[in-house]
Amino acid sequence: MYQPAGNCLIGQSGGPTSVINASLCGVIKQALNTNMIHRIYGAVNGIEGILERKIFDFCTQLKTRKDLDLLKTTPAAYLGSCRYKLPAIDADTHAYKELFDIFREYNIRYFFYIGGNDSMDTVMKLSTYAEKISFPIRIIGIPKTIDNDLVGTDHTPGFGSAAKYIAATVLEVTRDSYVYDLNSVTIIEVMGRNAGWLTASSALARCEYNNSPDLIYLPELPFSVEQFIRDIRTVQKHKKNVIVAVSEGIKNECGKYICEAVNDTKTDMFGHATLGGTGKSLEHIVKANFQAKVRSVELSVLQRCAMHMASKTDLDEAYNIGKEAVNTAVKGLTGRMMIFNRSTAPEYKISIDSVDVRQIANAEKKIPREWINEQGNDVMPQLIKYMKPLIQGQPDLVMRDGLPIFLTLDTTTFLPNKTANAV
Amino acid sequence: MYQPAGNCLIGQSGGPTSVINASLCGVIKQALNTNMIHRIYGAVNGIEGILERKIFDFCTQLKTRKDLDLLKTTPAAYLGSCRYKLPAIDADTHAYKELFDIFREYNIRYFFYIGGNDSMDTVMKLSTYAEKISFPIRIIGIPKTIDNDLVGTDHTPGFGSAAKYIAATVLEVTRDSYVYDLNSVTIIEVMGRNAGWLTASSALARCEYNNSPDLIYLPELPFSVEQFIRDIRTVQKHKKNVIVAVSEGIKNECGKYICEAVNDTKTDMFGHATLGGTGKSLEHIVKANFQAKVRSVELSVLQRCAMHMASKTDLDEAYNIGKEAVNTAVKGLTGRMMIFNRSTAPEYKISIDSVDVRQIANAEKKIPREWINEQGNDVMPQLIKYMKPLIQGQPDLVMRDGLPIFLTLDTTTFLPNKTANAV
Repeated sequence: MYQPAGNCLIGQSGGPTSVINASLCGVIKQALNTNMIHRIYGAVNGIEGILERKIFDFCTQLKTRKDLDLLKTTPAAYLGSCRYKLPAIDADTHAYKELFDIFREYNIRYFFYIGGNDSMDTVMKLSTYAEKISFPIRIIGIPKTIDNDLVGTDHTPGFGSAAKYIAATVLEVTRDSYVYDLNSVTIIEVMGRNAGWLTASSALARCEYNNSPDLIYLPELPFSVEQFIRDIRTVQKHKKNVIVAVSEGIKNECGKYICEAVNDTKTDMFGHATLGGTGKSLEHIVKANFQAKVRSVELSVLQRCAMHMASKTDLDEAYNIGKEAVNTAVKGLTGRMMIFNRSTAPEYKISIDSVDVRQIANAEKKIPREWINEQGNDVMPQLIKYMKPLIQGQPDLVMRDGLPIFLTLDTTTFLPNKTANAV
Repeated sequence: MYQPAGNCLIGQSGGPTSVINASLCGVIKQALNTNMIHRIYGAVNGIEGILERKIFDFCTQLKTRKDLDLLKTTPAAYLGSCRYKLPAIDADTHAYKELFDIFREYNIRYFFYIGGNDSMDTVMKLSTYAEKISFPIRIIGIPKTIDNDLVGTDHTPGFGSAAKYIAATVLEVTRDSYVYDLNSVTIIEVMGRNAGWLTASSALARCEYNNSPDLIYLPELPFSVEQFIRDIRTVQKHKKNVIVAVSEGIKNECGKYICEAVNDTKTDMFGHATLGGTGKSLEHIVKANFQAKVRSVELSVLQRCAMHMASKTDLDEAYNIGKEAVNTAVKGLTGRMMIFNRSTAPEYKISIDSVDVRQIANAEKKIPREWINEQGNDVMPQLIKYMKPLIQGQPDLVMRDGLPIFLTLDTTTFLPNKTANAV
């Protein structure tokens, strides 16, 4: 088999997570272990950054082993991110030509892209184009999203840590709401446009001494305001303090976002609706219908990179999937996304493999209907069983003065533009 | 000196904190150590609960040493809370008579009340009434508030943990906002009606690799929208991602809450304005004036009892002040609030003492003007130096399945009402 030795380039894309840099750290460590990879380059702000030649050599950044270890426990994309979407190859090859010129210039033979759904679209398109022009490069996608909405993998790195933070926060908010001897309704709004995994993770807060949240509404099923009001009345029959977890993306039977009643829905550059105000909308509805103290809490960006409450399981898995991505590429595979396979007997265990990225890109994994209860206001035990192993363990963070230390990128060390220099 | 042996009663009041139960734990442990105290009773929902005879014997609740240890790391008021305010003694002694009948019935000779400003008002009034009717009881207030707004003490238990959570969260949100290569303004709304201590704690997020938040607005100074817009423009000259920390309680020059422009201000039962929407109001202002991605994040109740990011220093101090409260009462003092004195040479050290509660009740400690910069948009180094020791150290939480275990009150074990039984 033709084994191209050369340099590798790593980029990150999509929303931040607590463990995206653990995957980056895994790629770097394994790249250091193979003779097939010479220089290890990083691209700042993903594909968009490559086009702007924001490329550096990791040896100018991570000078000690300590730096590399610190990278593992640094949340949010160390390399920065982008939301750049490549055009269809048939439509416009301009950006592709430019990117592959840069790959050629820096002798890039391995490209690792850590990201979510849109990033896998990039991996798919670039590997297709490479094949088309017979460019010897291995392009591997490493999954990353708190949303857990990628198909083909048991779960995504990043989800476990967000789920753990959400569960811990719901547990604490529940305790907070219980201290006063009065009727209250607390609505906790969780991220998730179309898939309810994050909102479902609120159910992990339940334990022998806590049975909240009392109601969970996921975007997989249509949301009925009338049913919502009836549900709260039912809970109030045996409980003063009602805790509701709700996805930002719940929609009514016509498919309209609930929060549209309050805010005009705007869309981001990918055509996704940018949401907000779902909790606040429900707060107004409850206030109008109940005599109770009503509060809505939006977990907002806090849930995306709360490294201080990350899952060690998630962190280690993210690191390992990064390492395996290098092995997969060196073996000669390209156009693949790394995945987790789960075995549950006798206990939770993950093996890492890869699948054709064309099976992944632009598909969305939602919660199966049978993992949601019949009434559509709670999750089933199978879903809790699925999520529980993912939030286990606490990572050891490097702390100073009571706060975690994180690593920051020095953006003053970009590689020279050889082409421009040659001119 | 007349040393009344008898039973003790403990209550909690005001808003939840991460460490209010550490103080409760300290009182119980020291009460177990003294012969002067026989039974240790708890009142559920503070003064209001005593009037409803929601009183139990701790030996029915905390059955093992493990339970007692778990109480120390359980956030939010274990005993529940209330917002009941006693009338002036001159105006109406009805509630006082009822309370002291109950104290007499259960042979209460020690009453410990853990709470904030309003709770110290209760301690003051009850001790004054006890003196008036020559009732042999020692009443001690144990401070507790995340707001750090009690006078007479260097700081309040609860503040350090909230400050640590806020600083860690600001650090993480800052990292989150930096990943995209675009102009952004992120506004983080922090609790604090009149005192800006919590908002100021966002400055603790600054370190060698992070200089955000870039702007800090405290309720101690009038807020000018025009100045705010100018301040953001100034920061934007050298920074793409602007991070603003703002107190919920900022007011304009006329003393009107900024958020009044959006929401009608309502008041709670103490006459305090219930705020919200300050961050959102500023978000709208920034959106109208800047071409940038604008987001507001409200830390809401999350900052009140985030035990998962508590300060060990705060937790230990809260525990110790509870223990010392018992010693103070047994020594024969009454109508006192426990306080911290700080010595800073050669290093941060706290000694515990008590002061006459009349010096404390209904007064409010704000940030001194000289600890805020001249422009009113940042804090001075002295303030950071004051706060830094309070957030040190991580408590060991008991974890199970990736989440902390907390202790919950069993409310089925209330003491019998002897008077009612006798009838």
